[in-house]
Amino acid sequence: MENTSIHLVARPTKGITADLFDVRHVSLPAVAEGQLLIRQTYMSLDPAMLGWMSEDRQSYIPPVELGEVMRSSGFGEVIESRHPGFATGDKVTGMFGWQTYCVSDGKGVNKVTVDLPPEAVLSILALPGLTATQGLFNVGKPKAGETLVVTGAAGSVGSLVGQLAKADGLRVVGVAGGQEKCDWLVNELGFDGAIDYKSDDLAEQLAALTPDGVDIFFENTGGPIQQLIFDRMNAHGRIVVCGMIADYLSPNPAPGPNWIRIIKKRLTIQGFTMPDHYAEVPELLAKLVPYVMAGKIKYRAHVLEGLESAITGLPMLFRGENTGKLLVKL
Amino acid sequence: MENTSIHLVARPTKGITADLFDVRHVSLPAVAEGQLLIRQTYMSLDPAMLGWMSEDRQSYIPPVELGEVMRSSGFGEVIESRHPGFATGDKVTGMFGWQTYCVSDGKGVNKVTVDLPPEAVLSILALPGLTATQGLFNVGKPKAGETLVVTGAAGSVGSLVGQLAKADGLRVVGVAGGQEKCDWLVNELGFDGAIDYKSDDLAEQLAALTPDGVDIFFENTGGPIQQLIFDRMNAHGRIVVCGMIADYLSPNPAPGPNWIRIIKKRLTIQGFTMPDHYAEVPELLAKLVPYVMAGKIKYRAHVLEGLESAITGLPMLFRGENTGKLLVKL
Repeated sequence: MENTSIHLVARPTKGITADLFDVRHVSLPAVAEGQLLIRQTYMSLDPAMLGWMSEDRQSYIPPVELGEVMRSSGFGEVIESRHPGFATGDKVTGMFGWQTYCVSDGKGVNKVTVDLPPEAVLSILALPGLTATQGLFNVGKPKAGETLVVTGAAGSVGSLVGQLAKADGLRVVGVAGGQEKCDWLVNELGFDGAIDYKSDDLAEQLAALTPDGVDIFFENTGGPIQQLIFDRMNAHGRIVVCGMIADYLSPNPAPGPNWIRIIKKRLTIQGFTMPDHYAEVPELLAKLVPYVMAGKIKYRAHVLEGLESAITGLPMLFRGENTGKLLVKL
Repeated sequence: MENTSIHLVARPTKGITADLFDVRHVSLPAVAEGQLLIRQTYMSLDPAMLGWMSEDRQSYIPPVELGEVMRSSGFGEVIESRHPGFATGDKVTGMFGWQTYCVSDGKGVNKVTVDLPPEAVLSILALPGLTATQGLFNVGKPKAGETLVVTGAAGSVGSLVGQLAKADGLRVVGVAGGQEKCDWLVNELGFDGAIDYKSDDLAEQLAALTPDGVDIFFENTGGPIQQLIFDRMNAHGRIVVCGMIADYLSPNPAPGPNWIRIIKKRLTIQGFTMPDHYAEVPELLAKLVPYVMAGKIKYRAHVLEGLESAITGLPMLFRGENTGKLLVKL
């Protein structure tokens, strides 16, 4: 059987361009004892991929080596199994990479047992939902009645953070790019307010929407609004630093806020990444799934068609062009 | 009996100058039932005073109102008591203010039960020691073998933080102003290294002294070295934000580091101030006193003579002119 795979062949020193990738067609080896063969049907494109592609060996997980299949999470079906834990027909998620088929020893492959379509699984229960759940509940420690501001609010993580916080009785304000996304946050997801970060009067909008200040700042983007939200943090506020997508591609990332307010308001600023918390995935899902099953969580997927659309699709994340969780349908 | 007191009569909009204060002489009222009269013998000058003098009602404790006696902590002796909890001759500490005598209802007045001279009590067991203990142990969570960098290391809090961390088996590097202070840190207090923040080669010195990176950054000062220490933070590092003395008087405080590293290294940055933790003072002293009694904690006091020396003494803290805990002997 022939596998089509996309390999990383250069580092993204000048942004994400097609010449960083090489599409290859190779015959798959026979499935050995203890292995399973997965046909991938959907794969997820995520901002974290830029970090995985970069040379930075100081980061939280090793980079994708040049020549390797590009790393990604995906959804698929087991089409052959010589592994005792999996049977043909099982629906599974895992880090399958940019390829049509994946031979695995089963490590890190999770069976999907909830009755949800693949798009919902990847949009809610995979990396975005785990990230939102860990960041909001275990780092942000929300309390009913508090005010939460989330940047990248229409993104895969931010939209879940806001909905989970709303479900728990917080006032939720989202920051997103463009009126369409802002309308979606307020009209469809029930956010209390939304701010287009491209507006001229960010400080005024933020003040109007957070009359009692900000208790939790869930940061996905960086950019000039960071300072404005920081300036409205209340005493004992928590800042969850999950992403800085506006700065990842910048050769000179913008400075952050001065730290005097951290003292005056006794703030806690905490960064996290999911690879530290993979052991806690069962607990995170146990926390998240009830919200999903209770109908509290809406999502929208932005689905690209065909494996190779990943190459032109990934940069859309950094230009804010996706509307919803960016997925590739194979 | 006549009391001499120094009152705050203007806000420090252009630094701390003598015209902000007014020295007054008034007769003390008779001590009423439930009150005690304290003769203050030493008072403490602390960087936090600048905040207390300022108009900022957003801060962690209310400002000193104009016309009020300037706020300060001190050491004294009870010379008359109509309070059941105190007897004539008791040695006490408390927020007695810039004055020679203090009539108190006993709230916030603590009896000194350890056999230490007043200078040691104010240098170690009062605000500096409580602050160092809370910040290092409860925020920084040190582990033997880790590397700690403390700024303002020759200051009242920093010198205690470094010694406590050394006593617990950490590698300790201090940042201070001038060779004399650096020599004191290494030769007298046993720090593993010290850096004069006025040096040209800060990054090189820091790299040489922290070969395994930095696990805990105890920040007392701000200034350009902040970014350099931040850049050496290890995964899961903790940054304790205790003071920003370099920036308090600046009309345009310098920006802080970009937040990308907070994610990559999963850092926690936490600010704290002692008024949030006054209820925990007994536990903090129980933690701190054994180090003191075991001879692990050295200090030096910089003692000014006479109540009015507070006026010219306080600005010394912001110019780094004090060598040791700044005290006024009355």
